[in-house]
Amino acid sequence: MLYHEPPRFPRGFHCASRNCGLKPKAKDLTLFVSDADATAAAVFTRNQFPGAPIILGRETIRGRRLRAIVANSRYSNVATGERGLDHARRMATAAAEEIQTTPDRVLVSSTGVIGVELPIELIERGIRGMSAELQDDPLVGAEGIMTTDTHAKSLSATVGEATITWVAKGSGMIEPNMATMLSYIFTDAAIDAEVLDGMLRRAVDVSFNMLSVDSDTSTSDTCAILANGQAGAVDAAQFEEVLTAGCIRMTEILARDGEGAKHLLRAIIRDAASPTDAKKIAKSLVNSPLIKTMVFGADPNVGRLLMAVGKCFDCVIPAASTDAWINGHAVVRGGRRLEFDDATVRAALKAEVVDLEVSLGAGEFAATAYGCDLTQGYIDENAAYYSS
Amino acid sequence: MLYHEPPRFPRGFHCASRNCGLKPKAKDLTLFVSDADATAAAVFTRNQFPGAPIILGRETIRGRRLRAIVANSRYSNVATGERGLDHARRMATAAAEEIQTTPDRVLVSSTGVIGVELPIELIERGIRGMSAELQDDPLVGAEGIMTTDTHAKSLSATVGEATITWVAKGSGMIEPNMATMLSYIFTDAAIDAEVLDGMLRRAVDVSFNMLSVDSDTSTSDTCAILANGQAGAVDAAQFEEVLTAGCIRMTEILARDGEGAKHLLRAIIRDAASPTDAKKIAKSLVNSPLIKTMVFGADPNVGRLLMAVGKCFDCVIPAASTDAWINGHAVVRGGRRLEFDDATVRAALKAEVVDLEVSLGAGEFAATAYGCDLTQGYIDENAAYYSS
Repeated sequence: MLYHEPPRFPRGFHCASRNCGLKPKAKDLTLFVSDADATAAAVFTRNQFPGAPIILGRETIRGRRLRAIVANSRYSNVATGERGLDHARRMATAAAEEIQTTPDRVLVSSTGVIGVELPIELIERGIRGMSAELQDDPLVGAEGIMTTDTHAKSLSATVGEATITWVAKGSGMIEPNMATMLSYIFTDAAIDAEVLDGMLRRAVDVSFNMLSVDSDTSTSDTCAILANGQAGAVDAAQFEEVLTAGCIRMTEILARDGEGAKHLLRAIIRDAASPTDAKKIAKSLVNSPLIKTMVFGADPNVGRLLMAVGKCFDCVIPAASTDAWINGHAVVRGGRRLEFDDATVRAALKAEVVDLEVSLGAGEFAATAYGCDLTQGYIDENAAYYSS
Repeated sequence: MLYHEPPRFPRGFHCASRNCGLKPKAKDLTLFVSDADATAAAVFTRNQFPGAPIILGRETIRGRRLRAIVANSRYSNVATGERGLDHARRMATAAAEEIQTTPDRVLVSSTGVIGVELPIELIERGIRGMSAELQDDPLVGAEGIMTTDTHAKSLSATVGEATITWVAKGSGMIEPNMATMLSYIFTDAAIDAEVLDGMLRRAVDVSFNMLSVDSDTSTSDTCAILANGQAGAVDAAQFEEVLTAGCIRMTEILARDGEGAKHLLRAIIRDAASPTDAKKIAKSLVNSPLIKTMVFGADPNVGRLLMAVGKCFDCVIPAASTDAWINGHAVVRGGRRLEFDDATVRAALKAEVVDLEVSLGAGEFAATAYGCDLTQGYIDENAAYYSS
């Protein structure tokens, strides 16, 4: 699949971003707008302390129509009680007034430090006048929602006459359930809201939900899709295929930009007894600190692969038929470490993308999980995130 | 409870340790011996790729009697197939010959790198003559089983006329299921094997099984207890109380010595709806990289407490009644971050022992989990563990 370079918006979508004073200088406020109402679907974090924007968003998305998304970075508006919910509503109202719609057509997101009250007046003031700054580069919108991301993240691709555009942020507190981050998808294809909802859930299931930077599930995860229909109908199967591929690609981009990461780590499990087993074992590999540090150090301590597979106590794991490869090099056969050329595997581990492949010989199911290595950079960023 | 300083063995137990050539210089081989057969019980790792010594140990412990434990460090004899099992049997045989008993009376342990064949001849040669070096300092035995531990670990305490002595190792690949490490307990109390087994399981359940350094479950975990009866009968309830307290204390010592750790981290969950909920949430806190880095950085980013509680999707968590404290300082009330004095909480986080206490208001069950902070030291040790 080819992605546009640079990424662009589908017909009728625009965005603006600003510094409204939450961060010292960097952009901290973004507005995404569709010219006309779009059918919409969204999935949110399963964390039991969801942020105020999540509580509001679940209510908003019931209408299945959106005109805009307004999002701020620096503060996540989580653990802020009734006042927090009021602040989220005020953000929706301010954005609705700015683009002349109603607040129930505006999805609100906040990302950043948990437990600090939003400086709502700064945000309201910041939103005023943004409609005059709307333009057509999705990366401008991506910039306003960055926290520890090292770069703004957007992709776009073509499906028939239509375009799909992804804008996302996130690099820590990432083990989606659903998608541990903010991820917005825009398309000008005309798609019924219910169909859109099904497509989004299936795509998220094999992409953002298989991503883990650090096994910590954010309180603010949001993945929303808006389809404004301006390009007319598309082939549904083809659309879903491109949607899913783009979600997986964005998942890889997020994983590679995991806090402090030097490598994209993919765990590919094959021949598992069930889809649940395949997913659980794939997640176990990308979440294992000992595997993550091994990849960082390019140290072929491949016994750790078996350890991380074997700690899935409830999965069917026939040791005698368990094989494993690192970027194509066989390192385990029949549950035993193979003799291999140390230098070759060490070199394979140094590649920017490291694929750990495990075949269980237990059935016919497969899954891939996405993660990154664990480095001193992760510690540095998170030991003083609140204060810095 | 008072622990002897320095720790000492119960009547009739002795140990020796040596360098047999697995490590360049440090001790890598330990023999623990009881003068007479002891009743015994043990629990082993639940990892589905157990090491050869675990496979053999499960067979050995069925006899419920032990005379000795022989253990080596540097290589774990895991993922080594039939040859590995043969090597474990040869270790038992060599130790049995050395102390004139039968191999079914000898428990074998190996700890270190996974997937490398044991240099069995070095070990067999090393065992010969060790019976002449037996002496009475349990720390000598502890030394021979160290891997990344920064110090040898032993405790002892009195129960009536009897003594209980703990010897343990472990600082990485630690999320017990059972006890992610080697932990041996010796006593001269006279206790029936079945009773001993029940006591051990209950004690492990609230101690070693609540420990996590890095959420990675070792393939070699072993916790065994030997009671040689030389001090006669003891009060069972009192014995179990001391046994449990010592297991918890040793768990704390292991957690504090977690790879790279600067702090002992305890997560104390109260008023949970079930024992399972309490344990799951306590483990979620000590396993959260974002909490672990917060403790390392003494950065009062207390929203992370709510995140780590809230990501236990299947637990009963009434947000409105969730309160939290850091070393006694209230930081969350009713699911909301409290205003607190930043400097005070920052100072509390700098203590060597950091207690994170969460009351859920959901029921009457409690659990405590034990862990440590996550530092650059963990990365440094594990990025090149295999090669170094």
